[in-house]
Amino acid sequence: MEQRSPFSKSFSERVPDGDNLPRQVCDHCGFIHYDNAKIVVGIIATWEGKLLFCKRAIGPRSGYWTFPAGFMEQGESSEEGARREAIEEANAEIEIDALIGIYNIPHISQVQIIYRGKLVNPDVSPGPESSEVRFCTWDEVPWDDLAFPSIRWALQSYRKVEGLAEFPPFLHTDHV
Amino acid sequence: MEQRSPFSKSFSERVPDGDNLPRQVCDHCGFIHYDNAKIVVGIIATWEGKLLFCKRAIGPRSGYWTFPAGFMEQGESSEEGARREAIEEANAEIEIDALIGIYNIPHISQVQIIYRGKLVNPDVSPGPESSEVRFCTWDEVPWDDLAFPSIRWALQSYRKVEGLAEFPPFLHTDHV
Repeated sequence: MEQRSPFSKSFSERVPDGDNLPRQVCDHCGFIHYDNAKIVVGIIATWEGKLLFCKRAIGPRSGYWTFPAGFMEQGESSEEGARREAIEEANAEIEIDALIGIYNIPHISQVQIIYRGKLVNPDVSPGPESSEVRFCTWDEVPWDDLAFPSIRWALQSYRKVEGLAEFPPFLHTDHV
Repeated sequence: MEQRSPFSKSFSERVPDGDNLPRQVCDHCGFIHYDNAKIVVGIIATWEGKLLFCKRAIGPRSGYWTFPAGFMEQGESSEEGARREAIEEANAEIEIDALIGIYNIPHISQVQIIYRGKLVNPDVSPGPESSEVRFCTWDEVPWDDLAFPSIRWALQSYRKVEGLAEFPPFLHTDHV
């Protein structure tokens, strides 16, 4: 039996021919919306050993702190996406040097791919999604005011491999 | 000016309020289709040093060889997705032991996350998407009949780290 879609009155939930899972299908044109997991790309970057943080100026979690991160767009690589987020949120130019980890959050269908990098120069300023940007020593990290749990996970991963040139990435899944 | 969507006659391409990129928007209900990059998860797995291959029984590239791989579904982690594909394509139970690499293909907006694993037992058989499954030594790998370029990239990566317990993953972007 077909069910009404939770997200649009024009879509129904049904199993398309040749598929094995229910999908959102448009009643008007038959368009199938494959709602796969979404990728968040982010980057923990330093200048002279200090970590780059941004204070969020938009929801969710406005007013809380994060490193540059956001949804990957079409037509870019995950590394390009991470560097784009650093420019959009902090006007920061960053060179990536390693993959810190992949953080899976299945209950919200997110895969977060977080890199490590170094700023090319210390010239940073808030982009439209940030109210403030700041460099922090480890003692200055705003642990109690981080925007999302995954920000803490990745920072903790980063710290464990801080001096290492090469390391296997952290592979973390958040089971709720 | 609005453009007709390339994928459905009911969708138009326009920039929604509060967004900064054009999206596919349904003419009937205003539903916004955020078509982010899609994740392919896969696994190169061995039994007694031999590599598991599947011959594709479905398009695209029916009749060509691959290791288990496919689109990640909602509600699963990337590791769970890779193991699910191994079950669906080869009835193979696999334990993951490392991330081989992340292979970006921006022109088709794919991010392929490929793991290394070991079969729990050698009992494999073709699933509905495969016509044949086979274990190969390196001399037996069907290099000329691999289904996709990314299958070759990941196999080449795997070979470089074959004896290593830990290694940084390969981070590859296909620029066309």
